[in-house]
Amino acid sequence: MKSGSPSTSPFRLPPWAIRLAHRQRKPMVAASDRMRFVIQLALTNITAQTGGPFGAAVFESQTGRLIAVGINVVEPTNCSLAHAEVVALANAHQIIRHFDLGAPGTPKLTLVASCEPCAMCYGAILWSGVRNVVCAARGSDATAIGFDEAPKPKNWVTALEDRGISVTRDLCRDEAIAVFRRYQETGGRIYNARKGLK
Amino acid sequence: MKSGSPSTSPFRLPPWAIRLAHRQRKPMVAASDRMRFVIQLALTNITAQTGGPFGAAVFESQTGRLIAVGINVVEPTNCSLAHAEVVALANAHQIIRHFDLGAPGTPKLTLVASCEPCAMCYGAILWSGVRNVVCAARGSDATAIGFDEAPKPKNWVTALEDRGISVTRDLCRDEAIAVFRRYQETGGRIYNARKGLK
Repeated sequence: MKSGSPSTSPFRLPPWAIRLAHRQRKPMVAASDRMRFVIQLALTNITAQTGGPFGAAVFESQTGRLIAVGINVVEPTNCSLAHAEVVALANAHQIIRHFDLGAPGTPKLTLVASCEPCAMCYGAILWSGVRNVVCAARGSDATAIGFDEAPKPKNWVTALEDRGISVTRDLCRDEAIAVFRRYQETGGRIYNARKGLK
Repeated sequence: MKSGSPSTSPFRLPPWAIRLAHRQRKPMVAASDRMRFVIQLALTNITAQTGGPFGAAVFESQTGRLIAVGINVVEPTNCSLAHAEVVALANAHQIIRHFDLGAPGTPKLTLVASCEPCAMCYGAILWSGVRNVVCAARGSDATAIGFDEAPKPKNWVTALEDRGISVTRDLCRDEAIAVFRRYQETGGRIYNARKGLK
């Protein structure tokens, strides 16, 4: 394989998120601390008007050191793929400089997300190499404010676990739902909800 | 929503693919011509040693004008997300400058891919706004040379069709399989096949 492109972030974050990621030097050991950090990302994303009500981050599983953050930047980057989980994983890959976040010699990594993965993000997690996924809101909570989550396999948790990725759900779920409600109350756009309408 | 990032390609293509996309000015009306173009992308990607044996492109559905190309650049970009379909869709978004490739006023677009979508790409297609998907090889053909395609919903074709995206399968399937075999014979790396092994 020939040498590749320089490690640039494929999905550009707004300046506030880049600053926040750089300043966060204290590891977050407790799972709830990590989740509240991620939910705060989602909230700031809507108050700063830089995207949708979703946040995610990749941490070292054991130490809680922050590796990369992600927020939903579908609208500002003009890219339907730019869900919070995808952005966090893409940024983690560029920082780790490997296409497998679980490659030998890499500390085990955890993806923490303010919402259960959609159909795409479920697949993205499968390929990423993270060893753990922790989610707050359910997909049905996103659907409740109008987002389309689309069908995942019924056994999606098992599909992840079969590949060595543990799944924890419903951590701080109510706090993530509160961010969804705020997005809805402030008239946030429900993009990608055309559902095939012309 | 505040103004976003400049339209840069989130997944960098190798120079040969950029040149090829720029030079392809003649529209491809026949579905088989489009597919052979995409299979050639997959083949060139392995002979140039710039990634895996998968190609994709976005065309204007009616005219056959090429909008964007994608190849699998997981290894050279250090990014597990960089499947051919994802790269083609991301590049199309940057060219169309909209997060919905099916937005009002946009000509209907077709994604042509040398292989059926994996679990992640199925979801990416759902959100992209393309109106048609045309695939060559089956997922089982990729699995046969060692790739992990992971479970998609059993009704994935229906899930796409329910959102106004038509699905055509098996076009030039044997030609796409021949590229997979060549990749296998030349010792191409089967990345992301750790399947949870430590």
